Amino acid sequence: GRRMFEEARKAARRLAIASRAVKDAALHSVADALDANVERIALENAKDVAAAKTTDALIDRLRLDGERVGAMAAVVRAIAGEEDPVGAVIEDRARPNGLRVRRVRVPLGVIGMIYESRPNVTAEAAALCFKAGNAVILRGGSDAARSNAIIGDVIRAALPEAFRDAVILAASTRESVLEMVRAEGAIDLIIPRGGEALIRFVTDNARVPVVQHYKGVCHMFVDAGADAQDAARIVVNAKLSRPGVCNALECLLVDRKDAARLLGPIARALVEGGCEIRGCEEVLALCEAFALSEAFAVKAAGADDWGREFLDRIIAVRVVDGLDGALAHIARYGSGHTEAILTRDAGHAARFRAEVDAACVVVNASTRFHDGGELGLGAEIGIATSRLHWRGPMGLESLTTMKWIVDGDGQTR
Amino acid sequence: GRRMFEEARKAARRLAIASRAVKDAALHSVADALDANVERIALENAKDVAAAKTTDALIDRLRLDGERVGAMAAVVRAIAGEEDPVGAVIEDRARPNGLRVRRVRVPLGVIGMIYESRPNVTAEAAALCFKAGNAVILRGGSDAARSNAIIGDVIRAALPEAFRDAVILAASTRESVLEMVRAEGAIDLIIPRGGEALIRFVTDNARVPVVQHYKGVCHMFVDAGADAQDAARIVVNAKLSRPGVCNALECLLVDRKDAARLLGPIARALVEGGCEIRGCEEVLALCEAFALSEAFAVKAAGADDWGREFLDRIIAVRVVDGLDGALAHIARYGSGHTEAILTRDAGHAARFRAEVDAACVVVNASTRFHDGGELGLGAEIGIATSRLHWRGPMGLESLTTMKWIVDGDGQTR
Repeated sequence: GRRMFEEARKAARRLAIASRAVKDAALHSVADALDANVERIALENAKDVAAAKTTDALIDRLRLDGERVGAMAAVVRAIAGEEDPVGAVIEDRARPNGLRVRRVRVPLGVIGMIYESRPNVTAEAAALCFKAGNAVILRGGSDAARSNAIIGDVIRAALPEAFRDAVILAASTRESVLEMVRAEGAIDLIIPRGGEALIRFVTDNARVPVVQHYKGVCHMFVDAGADAQDAARIVVNAKLSRPGVCNALECLLVDRKDAARLLGPIARALVEGGCEIRGCEEVLALCEAFALSEAFAVKAAGADDWGREFLDRIIAVRVVDGLDGALAHIARYGSGHTEAILTRDAGHAARFRAEVDAACVVVNASTRFHDGGELGLGAEIGIATSRLHWRGPMGLESLTTMKWIVDGDGQTR
Repeated sequence: GRRMFEEARKAARRLAIASRAVKDAALHSVADALDANVERIALENAKDVAAAKTTDALIDRLRLDGERVGAMAAVVRAIAGEEDPVGAVIEDRARPNGLRVRRVRVPLGVIGMIYESRPNVTAEAAALCFKAGNAVILRGGSDAARSNAIIGDVIRAALPEAFRDAVILAASTRESVLEMVRAEGAIDLIIPRGGEALIRFVTDNARVPVVQHYKGVCHMFVDAGADAQDAARIVVNAKLSRPGVCNALECLLVDRKDAARLLGPIARALVEGGCEIRGCEEVLALCEAFALSEAFAVKAAGADDWGREFLDRIIAVRVVDGLDGALAHIARYGSGHTEAILTRDAGHAARFRAEVDAACVVVNASTRFHDGGELGLGAEIGIATSRLHWRGPMGLESLTTMKWIVDGDGQTR
């Protein structure tokens, strides 16, 4: 409740002025403590797994073994190794009256993290928020309650006492979510991570600002003149390397002018990879011409297959009228997450970069690169599809705000 | 209604990819049109003024004459002269796999501006949003409805047709405010400007992200060893140069160790400037010793005078236990707007810069410098006291978001 928020605020004030060395030393203690407590963590996790009433895939996400705890500790050490965003000077200018004006990065304050399932988020989110000088209130899912609790205990015990309340675990109840999202003034930012229903519930009830992580309905447009083998390879990577994640490809668009040449190799590679194709009429006709129809799971797309996040080995495929057709389809059906083009036409690439409105626009590469690690950010706390404050992979910098510092020698206005 | 939002979105999409030259030419047309329509604007404004049932000060803010319309046009031209924030590259890095990763500034989209009283905000907000590539829906106060409507008409008529719906005026009703703040997905950011009640109403009802502009309870701490004459001059400027604005000083803190020397000249200068002092007991005793009590309007501060925004020729004055006492007072009573220190001690200045949590921290100068123009930003659409997205004076950059652009030559993950 309120008491918890006040303790977090006090810890955040102390942490905001801590040096990088102090913060990194604390993070290394946390990593060492995680390594030293693998057995305790695995024991509590086993209770969560035993009690879980969910699908095998979700149980796999829930499970923690020695290797996964070791990976958590490694992420915490990697975060300790990253640059400290706090104190970075964004601008520094002298005014004609002699004032020096600087804009510098400072911590956001108290962050509320509301997430489901994977308990490693507990350690990663705690370390990211801590390194950026923030306190964090972590509200994980009830499926992982015991795992989160033990990880939280291990982290808190490893932190210096002054910073202990910079990491606080909230109860896995609906009430705690409501209390957090309405804690205006006490919590500065809410980051929800999980299914669309969770993010919708948080957003609808929030009085505290929320950075949303909505779904990724990622498109790839294969332009006329693209290399068909390259396209097949990249489409298969984007769709099938990990179909269940938000940067996986969901809809392929092919230029009508070149579809007869391009679609065969791409469709064949997808089907060989075990992917179901849901095509528009022209796609169906072309697939039939390639003898790629029923036997290989090529079906007619329904109206609701456009703009749909399958998160599975299913892809919607549509023939469009060139770049303009692709841009119109993406503007209508895209979710603003990741949109890609494969093209040899520099002008088309430039228009695609400029005109597509998404957190990440990719030219001639897989959509799967939209990820904090792949883009060079180090760890990420999520990928923002909302527009305010931050967009795309949220690393350390995204967990800060700014402060203006004005230095004078007696100036008046 | 929804139709209006859709038109704004379409115009925003076109404007997002417009070149700087095109946008600046449109802004110059707008400025010329404002100049050419001074009489029509003054006529409509006179009707607002005649109908106004408000105080003289507010009527003065409402009034538009040839000079004020000319000043509006000049601000629009100045905004045309500023750098275009859109397309600016925030970062640009090469990844080991050959991907080039850029983060660039792009427009926010559709901005909702909800404001009271001064009709010049209509032109300034429209020009700022336009230059940053955004559409704006302007919902002004009912007091200025006719003035805002004619200014809106003049601006829209001067814009190229493709961009006309980038500036839309909403009705001055309570319903239009509610419709705007709940238009999730249609409006990307709400900026309220006005009294605390307006900002509270907007925030409480908003589903769209809001950048808040709450009150400025600005403090100035005069450290032991400060020059008393300098301090008097700067305090008088901060408090009395324009007492009704948010960066005016509201509370003076003086180090107990040196209060007997410092307080006399400062209090005398304030009182001579027509300012009422509301002091703590020690301040009252010192003022009495300086023969500065009843005759000069020195009163005992009530408990609610700490943390109060007087916006008038009244100042709260308190003796504190050095820097730590000042920091504690500011942490408790400050509004996170502007906090200042006058000191000759570099260590104290450094601690004050680091430990005060406010949008702007000022060392050895007047609080009045916390202003977009004074800090070198050009025009501002307001000063944010909230922490997300932006903090402090909101110029063109604050009206943008970011987009990640990834360029490859066939990379897969």
